[in-house]
Amino acid sequence: MPNLMNRQILLRSRPKGEPRPSDFELVETPAPVPGEGELLCRTIYLSLDPYMRGRMDEGRSYTGGMNPALGTVMVGGTISEVITSNNAQFRPGEFVQGFNGWQAYAVSKGAGLRKLDPRQAPLTTGLGVLGMPGMTAYVGLLDIGRPKPGETVVVSAASGAVGSVVGQLAKLKGCRAVGVAGSEAKCEHVVRALGFDACVNYKAGPLRPALQKACPDGIDVYFDNVGGDVLAAALTLVNQNARIPLCGLISQYNATEPPPGPNLRPVLVNRVLIQGFIVSDHLDRQADFLRECTRWYREGRLKYTEDVVTGLESAPEAFVGLLRGRNFGKLIVKVGEERP
Amino acid sequence: MPNLMNRQILLRSRPKGEPRPSDFELVETPAPVPGEGELLCRTIYLSLDPYMRGRMDEGRSYTGGMNPALGTVMVGGTISEVITSNNAQFRPGEFVQGFNGWQAYAVSKGAGLRKLDPRQAPLTTGLGVLGMPGMTAYVGLLDIGRPKPGETVVVSAASGAVGSVVGQLAKLKGCRAVGVAGSEAKCEHVVRALGFDACVNYKAGPLRPALQKACPDGIDVYFDNVGGDVLAAALTLVNQNARIPLCGLISQYNATEPPPGPNLRPVLVNRVLIQGFIVSDHLDRQADFLRECTRWYREGRLKYTEDVVTGLESAPEAFVGLLRGRNFGKLIVKVGEERP
Repeated sequence: MPNLMNRQILLRSRPKGEPRPSDFELVETPAPVPGEGELLCRTIYLSLDPYMRGRMDEGRSYTGGMNPALGTVMVGGTISEVITSNNAQFRPGEFVQGFNGWQAYAVSKGAGLRKLDPRQAPLTTGLGVLGMPGMTAYVGLLDIGRPKPGETVVVSAASGAVGSVVGQLAKLKGCRAVGVAGSEAKCEHVVRALGFDACVNYKAGPLRPALQKACPDGIDVYFDNVGGDVLAAALTLVNQNARIPLCGLISQYNATEPPPGPNLRPVLVNRVLIQGFIVSDHLDRQADFLRECTRWYREGRLKYTEDVVTGLESAPEAFVGLLRGRNFGKLIVKVGEERP
Repeated sequence: MPNLMNRQILLRSRPKGEPRPSDFELVETPAPVPGEGELLCRTIYLSLDPYMRGRMDEGRSYTGGMNPALGTVMVGGTISEVITSNNAQFRPGEFVQGFNGWQAYAVSKGAGLRKLDPRQAPLTTGLGVLGMPGMTAYVGLLDIGRPKPGETVVVSAASGAVGSVVGQLAKLKGCRAVGVAGSEAKCEHVVRALGFDACVNYKAGPLRPALQKACPDGIDVYFDNVGGDVLAAALTLVNQNARIPLCGLISQYNATEPPPGPNLRPVLVNRVLIQGFIVSDHLDRQADFLRECTRWYREGRLKYTEDVVTGLESAPEAFVGLLRGRNFGKLIVKVGEERP
C-alpha cells in the first residue's frame, strides 16, 4: 500500500488547568510500514476517557509509563482492522482492540492486542461496556466494593462509561442502585433505560438532601468517579463498614492547585474503607469480567449508551467536553468505517 | 462497709469546641452497694483517652451506646480492686480491668471485667501497652496496615499510648519506623527509648520536607491518629499500594465545623487503602494481642511510657491537656492506692 497517508493528533502543549483544543495538533504523515512480525492497523474507533487528562501532564503516568512527549501522538484505546500482517497470529480483516492512540493507522507487534468478534457484540463495546471502562466497573464494584444483596450502591458520573455499568452490576447483585449525574436527561436515562432505582441531578439543587432522600437506608458502597462535592456529600451518608472504591476524581483533574478533600470523620466513625484502584492492576480478573459481562450483555441485562463523534479531527473538542460532562454515555470517536 | 463515700466526676455541660474543666463537676455521694451477683470495685487507675471527647457530645457514640447524659458519670476504662463480691467469679483483693468510669467506686455484674495479675505486668499496663491502646495499635497496624519487612511505617502522635506501640511493632516486624510528635523531647524519647528509626517534630518547621527526609523510600503504612496537616503531608509521600489505618483524628476533635480533609489524588494514583477502624470491632484478636504483646513486653522488646497524674480531681484538667498534646505517654489518673 504505497503512499498510504496517516492522520495523527499530536500533543502540542501541556495544559495549565482545563485543556483546550489548541493543545492538540492534527498532522498528516506517511502511514508507517510494518516490519518483520508486525501488523498494520487501521483505526476504526478511538476511545476518549477522563484519565487522558493526566497523560497530558509532564512526567510519568500513574500506570508507570512516561506520558507522551510534546509533539508525539496522544495515547488512547482503539478498535482497529488489521490491514496487512507479517505476524502469523493476525490476519488481514481481523478486528483488534488495542492501544494505538489518536491516529488513523498504527503498526503493532501484536502484544496487548485482543481480537474482537463482531458477531458476539458490536465492535464499540470493546471500548466500553466490554472493555476497559466495563472492567473498571467490574473489579471496582465487585472486588473492592463487595456489594451484598439489599445494600445501597451509589455511583457518580452514573451515565458515563464506568458509572452506567456500576449501577447495572449493582442491580444484578441485588442492591439498590442510585446514580448521581449532571442533567435531568442523564438521570432519567439511567433510571428508565438502565434500571437504576434512583438518580440525583447534582446541578438541580443542594445535593446532600436529595441524595439522602434517594438513599433512605444510607450508603453501603459509594463508587466514586468524581471526588469533590459529590464525594463529600456521599461521605455524610455512609453506613457502618461502607466501602468506597476510588476510581476517579474528574472534578479536580483540571485543578492547578491540589484542592482539599472531604472531611474524614465519617470514615473513622463508620469504619469505612476507601481504596484507590486502577484497572490495569487487576488483569487477572479479565477472563471473569469478559465471561460474565458478555453473558449479561447477551441476555439483555447489561445495557450501554454511546456518544459517538465522527472524525479524528473531532477528538480534541470532544475530549475537552468529556471533562465538562458534555458527553452522554461512553465517548467514542469514529475514525474510520467498519467496512470501508 | 457502711458510710463508704464515693467521689464521681459528672459531665456537667457539653463543650462547644475545646472542653474546659468547668464542663465537669466533682461530687461526693454514698458509694453504691452491690446487689445479688454484683461486686464492688475500688478504682485504682482511670484511663484518659482522646476518644472521650466524642463521648461528651450529644447523642450516640460511634461504638453504638448512648453518650453520657448531663449530670451522669463520665465513662472511661479503669483498673480496680474488688472490695466485696456477691459474684462467685470474683474475690475480694483481685484486680480487674473494666470500664467503671470517672469515679472512685463502682458496682459491676462482672461482665466485661478482665482479671489482671500484677506479677505478670504492672497494673497500669492494662490501660496502655497491654490494654485498649496497645490492642488498637496491634490490630490497626498488623491487620489493616499489614506491614512487610523493609517497608516504612509512619505513625502520628508517636509518643502516645497507641503510637508508641505502633512504632515498636513496626520494628518487631522488620520495618523502618518513623514517628511524628509535637516536641523535641517526645521525638528524642521515641527514637532513643523506644527504638524508632526517626521522629519528626511537627512543630519545628515545615512538616513535609522533614517527613520526606525521614522517609527516603516513601511511606508504605501511615498509621494516623491525628488527621489534619500530618495526614495531608503523609499522603504526599505514599508509595504505591500504601495502607492508612485511620485510628483517630485528634486534630479535629474540638472542631465546631467539619474541616476539609486531605487531597485524595495520591490515594487514587497510588492505589492507597484508607480504612477507619475501631478496636472494639476486633475483639476476636484480643487473645492473639495479649499473648504476643505480653511476651514482647516480658522480653523487653515492647516498652511503654506513662504520664500519671494523681487524684480523681485532676482528671478534667489532664483530659483537656491530652487533647492539646500536653501528656507524655499514656495518660493515667491514679485514683487510689494499689495497696491502701
